Amino acid sequence: MKALAFFPLLFLLLLAPSAYGEQRFSTATEECLGCHATINPGIVSAWKKSRHAAVTPAEAFKVEGLDRKISSGDIGDEMKNVVVGCAECHTLDPKSHADNFEHNGHDVHVVVSPKDCAACHAVEAGQYQKNLMAQAHPNLTSNAVYQFLIDSVNALPAVKATPPAPAHKRDLTEAESCLYCHGTKLTVTGTTSRETELGSMDFPVIAGWPNQGVGRINPDGSKGSCSACHSRHEFSMETARKPYTCKECHSGPDVPAAKVYDASKHGNIFYSDNKHWDFQKTKWTVGQDFTAPTCAACHISLLVNTEGKVIANRTHEMKERLPWRLFGLVYAHPHPREADTTVIRNKDGLPLPTNFGGEVAEKFLLTADERTAARKRMQSVCLACHAQSWVDGHWERFLNTIESTNTSTLAATQIMGDVWARGLATNHAKGGNPFDESIERQWTDVWLLWANTVRLASAMGGGGDYGVFADGRYNLRKAVQAMKEWAESRQDAKAKAKPGSRK
Amino acid sequence: MKALAFFPLLFLLLLAPSAYGEQRFSTATEECLGCHATINPGIVSAWKKSRHAAVTPAEAFKVEGLDRKISSGDIGDEMKNVVVGCAECHTLDPKSHADNFEHNGHDVHVVVSPKDCAACHAVEAGQYQKNLMAQAHPNLTSNAVYQFLIDSVNALPAVKATPPAPAHKRDLTEAESCLYCHGTKLTVTGTTSRETELGSMDFPVIAGWPNQGVGRINPDGSKGSCSACHSRHEFSMETARKPYTCKECHSGPDVPAAKVYDASKHGNIFYSDNKHWDFQKTKWTVGQDFTAPTCAACHISLLVNTEGKVIANRTHEMKERLPWRLFGLVYAHPHPREADTTVIRNKDGLPLPTNFGGEVAEKFLLTADERTAARKRMQSVCLACHAQSWVDGHWERFLNTIESTNTSTLAATQIMGDVWARGLATNHAKGGNPFDESIERQWTDVWLLWANTVRLASAMGGGGDYGVFADGRYNLRKAVQAMKEWAESRQDAKAKAKPGSRK
Amino acid sequence: MKALAFFPLLFLLLLAPSAYGEQRFSTATEECLGCHATINPGIVSAWKKSRHAAVTPAEAFKVEGLDRKISSGDIGDEMKNVVVGCAECHTLDPKSHADNFEHNGHDVHVVVSPKDCAACHAVEAGQYQKNLMAQAHPNLTSNAVYQFLIDSVNALPAVKATPPAPAHKRDLTEAESCLYCHGTKLTVTGTTSRETELGSMDFPVIAGWPNQGVGRINPDGSKGSCSACHSRHEFSMETARKPYTCKECHSGPDVPAAKVYDASKHGNIFYSDNKHWDFQKTKWTVGQDFTAPTCAACHISLLVNTEGKVIANRTHEMKERLPWRLFGLVYAHPHPREADTTVIRNKDGLPLPTNFGGEVAEKFLLTADERTAARKRMQSVCLACHAQSWVDGHWERFLNTIESTNTSTLAATQIMGDVWARGLATNHAKGGNPFDESIERQWTDVWLLWANTVRLASAMGGGGDYGVFADGRYNLRKAVQAMKEWAESRQDAKAKAKPGSRK
Repeated sequence: MKALAFFPLLFLLLLAPSAYGEQRFSTATEECLGCHATINPGIVSAWKKSRHAAVTPAEAFKVEGLDRKISSGDIGDEMKNVVVGCAECHTLDPKSHADNFEHNGHDVHVVVSPKDCAACHAVEAGQYQKNLMAQAHPNLTSNAVYQFLIDSVNALPAVKATPPAPAHKRDLTEAESCLYCHGTKLTVTGTTSRETELGSMDFPVIAGWPNQGVGRINPDGSKGSCSACHSRHEFSMETARKPYTCKECHSGPDVPAAKVYDASKHGNIFYSDNKHWDFQKTKWTVGQDFTAPTCAACHISLLVNTEGKVIANRTHEMKERLPWRLFGLVYAHPHPREADTTVIRNKDGLPLPTNFGGEVAEKFLLTADERTAARKRMQSVCLACHAQSWVDGHWERFLNTIESTNTSTLAATQIMGDVWARGLATNHAKGGNPFDESIERQWTDVWLLWANTVRLASAMGGGGDYGVFADGRYNLRKAVQAMKEWAESRQDAKAKAKPGSRK
Repeated sequence: MKALAFFPLLFLLLLAPSAYGEQRFSTATEECLGCHATINPGIVSAWKKSRHAAVTPAEAFKVEGLDRKISSGDIGDEMKNVVVGCAECHTLDPKSHADNFEHNGHDVHVVVSPKDCAACHAVEAGQYQKNLMAQAHPNLTSNAVYQFLIDSVNALPAVKATPPAPAHKRDLTEAESCLYCHGTKLTVTGTTSRETELGSMDFPVIAGWPNQGVGRINPDGSKGSCSACHSRHEFSMETARKPYTCKECHSGPDVPAAKVYDASKHGNIFYSDNKHWDFQKTKWTVGQDFTAPTCAACHISLLVNTEGKVIANRTHEMKERLPWRLFGLVYAHPHPREADTTVIRNKDGLPLPTNFGGEVAEKFLLTADERTAARKRMQSVCLACHAQSWVDGHWERFLNTIESTNTSTLAATQIMGDVWARGLATNHAKGGNPFDESIERQWTDVWLLWANTVRLASAMGGGGDYGVFADGRYNLRKAVQAMKEWAESRQDAKAKAKPGSRK
Repeated sequence: MKALAFFPLLFLLLLAPSAYGEQRFSTATEECLGCHATINPGIVSAWKKSRHAAVTPAEAFKVEGLDRKISSGDIGDEMKNVVVGCAECHTLDPKSHADNFEHNGHDVHVVVSPKDCAACHAVEAGQYQKNLMAQAHPNLTSNAVYQFLIDSVNALPAVKATPPAPAHKRDLTEAESCLYCHGTKLTVTGTTSRETELGSMDFPVIAGWPNQGVGRINPDGSKGSCSACHSRHEFSMETARKPYTCKECHSGPDVPAAKVYDASKHGNIFYSDNKHWDFQKTKWTVGQDFTAPTCAACHISLLVNTEGKVIANRTHEMKERLPWRLFGLVYAHPHPREADTTVIRNKDGLPLPTNFGGEVAEKFLLTADERTAARKRMQSVCLACHAQSWVDGHWERFLNTIESTNTSTLAATQIMGDVWARGLATNHAKGGNPFDESIERQWTDVWLLWANTVRLASAMGGGGDYGVFADGRYNLRKAVQAMKEWAESRQDAKAKAKPGSRK
């Protein structure tokens, strides 16, 4: 039974060779393959290596217990006895997809959404909707404060142009900067005709395409993109479980999880030894299948011990194991309770989980009890390889680092507040952007880059060289000092505004 | 026949074991091995693992069609029936090599050049000579503007020294900084005697050695070093096809191709899955041999689809697939037509493809039609895995990013021009170096580091976190803002030059 | 005999299956496993994959010559015929361990120290005690100058806080910043009771735990942590020989060995090809087992040529192959003679190997002859793959880079001295911290980050892009220039201190 679960293709080839072959593809999928195997050989070949191409839902349902990968209660009979091919996803529920179009007799949609995946993987899709990431698009773009930050990065500086500077399409810039990870909003804006080998054909024009951001707004209204992590079209669990996948979005100094991991003991063991590991086991056995955690092991995967006992249940809702949110905001703070953070209001009325003084917007964030539960779920993973005293020691340092980096940020923010008050820079309260001037950018560096890096290094690696000299404490202290000296060296704006001074 | 192409060693061992053995080495190579297998076991062992050590040219010629690796029309009979050993390369055409010397009865040269490799690989060597890289040495060192940039990096700051500061040999510094990648000029400067296990021996002294830069000037007058990518002495196609090879020179923020790739979806798939891939197939089948492109796949390799149809021809002339040059210059611009860029003159008479206002030196750069052809060759690779709408969407963003980063650079350059005009910094027009003062360096950062990074992230990865926070848009905008504030805060040089001010 | 050396487990399983099984574990270890296999499956599974779990010391002693891994003359009979399990290390010599405690009838200690490892690996433990790393804790924390540097990084900036800023425990910060790598001092501070599945149990409380820093001060008074590199509990030679291990501490721009290696030709070959290499051979054969060096190959490992002749003896005392110390100090200088550097006094009486003018504290550093011997040991590794002219050329550039970076540092230090003299910043001589003000931090960047990076890039990679644009020469020159301009733009402190100026 286990062999069936792990090696269904092999099983079927050995015991029922005649059952394998074209007849396992739906007629519609066969038609797709007729052309696309030649036109897009990369997609088709990758898919052929996938589990989707090898197993029918009916077979997947036969797997019992935690080894079962299909999580929906039932699916229609029509789909049960064919493997999951092109048509099974790209023609599913055509009416709900605004990007659906007639294509050689089929109603096809370009963008496969989490709703489509939920046909078979309902539990994971449901968990993911409660994940902060599913709301990554509105959480960023509908937040007035963040909008200032986006402007301070993506608005072009002024030019005196002869000849005129080329046009700049801001939405195209957004799509490949912030929204590459946060997800674009996909909107069908029209239809275009293209000459193909089969003559002229019509295709939908989709603004925001291509995109695989974690909070993508799909043409069917759903949110997210499973292929952000489960890369098309092999959808390999091995890929999703390796740190390279998370690195795509967790790479820069604003959220350097990949870099921190690379310089940690866990990363050391992963990179040195993972060629000997098994990334394909649905129940992932600690110590046996792998000897150091990857991102997925701590945050998502179903882990068991060598006796098959569950250490951690699979979750696609990250906060299950996350008491704190460490990055992206001015201060580290208890993790938000809801995936939609646009509803948060701090004491000053801003849509942020803390105010600029560091006071938390309690009612929108995990309570102490909820944080304890999340911590325990995370620590059960730690304890599989570490004794309690090790884990306690690690956690004490981590909490101290949250406190100390928040204190450093408070110092920087007080300097910034003073600078604003003295009229040396102009924030939103006075009609400016709080993130665009040089002194404001130095302040932004403090929390968005350096404090975040220090906290991630602490949380994921127990500290180390990376969290000190590579974008860490060394940089953090330097930036606060530079802010202090700058503020001290400046005369107040009013005093400055006297005749004879340069404007 | 295919088995012969792919596994010639195996084939020969199975069918003609007696044909394999010492008699396949030339007598000269056997003599080399006699000593050097012990003296330099690393070189010899690596070579023994190579295809060169396993196949004779005569056997290589028997391979038909695209699987054939030897590309010269014919080679002398003398070399045809021995494998490619030490002597075959290091004693070839001795008279043309200024570094040739008498060594135990053989005329040996130290530096194997592209001309030597061309004996068997004439097509690739020919393509490479049309590649910008082949001219990387003079393109850098013979350009008066770049010479200023080199000075601003490699000239030492002044010291008042007692005892005297240690001597600094600038040519040694150049050889391990700019010229490590661009290539040194190898010049035989004399002869030295060394005690060896076989007694005293004479060896040539070669200034600029060692070096494997892409534009190395060899003692035989040829340009380039095949071993820059085809690492000695295994010359493994697997190595050349992996991104680590390109990373040696495309690593820093001036040209962070490796870092961008590492944080891209393509990189994600490569790093996660490449242990399952086949890097040895001469015709590299998309989707089957590999499921995401490496540097070589997009820029160089011969790609076929699963039916063996050519998707992209092999080229060692990068601009075949490159309409634009994105990095290294003040503005992104159409790719130069000729590998030798020292002939370029912009409207202001400088040897640069644009002037400081961004206007292109049209007649030296690819025309619109040539760019279209190059784009189509590149996109045929994209289309093997992506639909047309995906590729079009990607390209539209990429062109916008060229425009928007050029606009940001124009804004910075206008500020810089103003600073020069006001006498706050001194450029080449006034006898200074346009790159050495702090404000000039900030301007250099804008285009040489940040704008380049943004463009590479767009071109290779469709954007993402790396192109924003890791040396990307965030840094670009910050640097332009800092320049603006600096310029605004300064009094003009003339106004400043009044009694009582510090000099 | 060789098969026995390399595959003892296989050998035993084939020839003497009845000898393998539970009876090879000591009774004490069996008791440990009884609970901990379930409680900490990760540790136990990793250990089961280790050589320790597969070989008894008696078997290890049977291996002859350089293949033998056990290096102690003899060990007690009691331990000889059981594999090295939990109890063999964690209950060894209980009286010497301050963290020892009664645990289910056994005297167990948490922290296994180099003294414990020395029971079987006496030679390596002895070498390591002469390694600078063994003294990394006192070398940092007992040096008054370094203490200033630590303060400038880890002391929090001042805040005006209402509500009060959260408490910050400095020792917890130290433990995950500097001391993560340098090693904490482990001190038993008490006992705690914890509820377990077997009821309430007492455990020692150890301040500074967890830690695996190279210079950890252990509860038995010994120094170091073998598991810094020989990761628990698999203790795999493969892991220790791969560069990921060193990266944990040699990662940031203060000592970017990992980053430099990644962008070097050696790194290129390692990353491209190492899946084909053998990392398990005790005698590591150059060219055969591996074709490019890793960190361990150049600095530590026992290397032989294809005839089994020793190229380099194994050493855990790094300076055996290191004539120069390149990083961590103001100037590169001859390597210290003793591991304990706290005894060093420069001409100005400070505990540094040079004074601020660059003059070396000769009597504490390797003599010219000792440096020659160290250079030759290192170069014997180079020569396994490179001809003498290659190695000589490399070394000449490397020495020039030591000189040129020291000269740049001297220029920066002279500017700094001038700034201190003019009262524009306050150093230790005037009761301040020489590293905390912005201009001082810029000076620190010059030597601690950029000059170090340039030297490591030269030493390990022969230069290249990384040593220029990624934290290298480009940054070094920029920082010195910025210091110069800052100093020139400032009025002297005295001149400034006149009525009307802002304080």
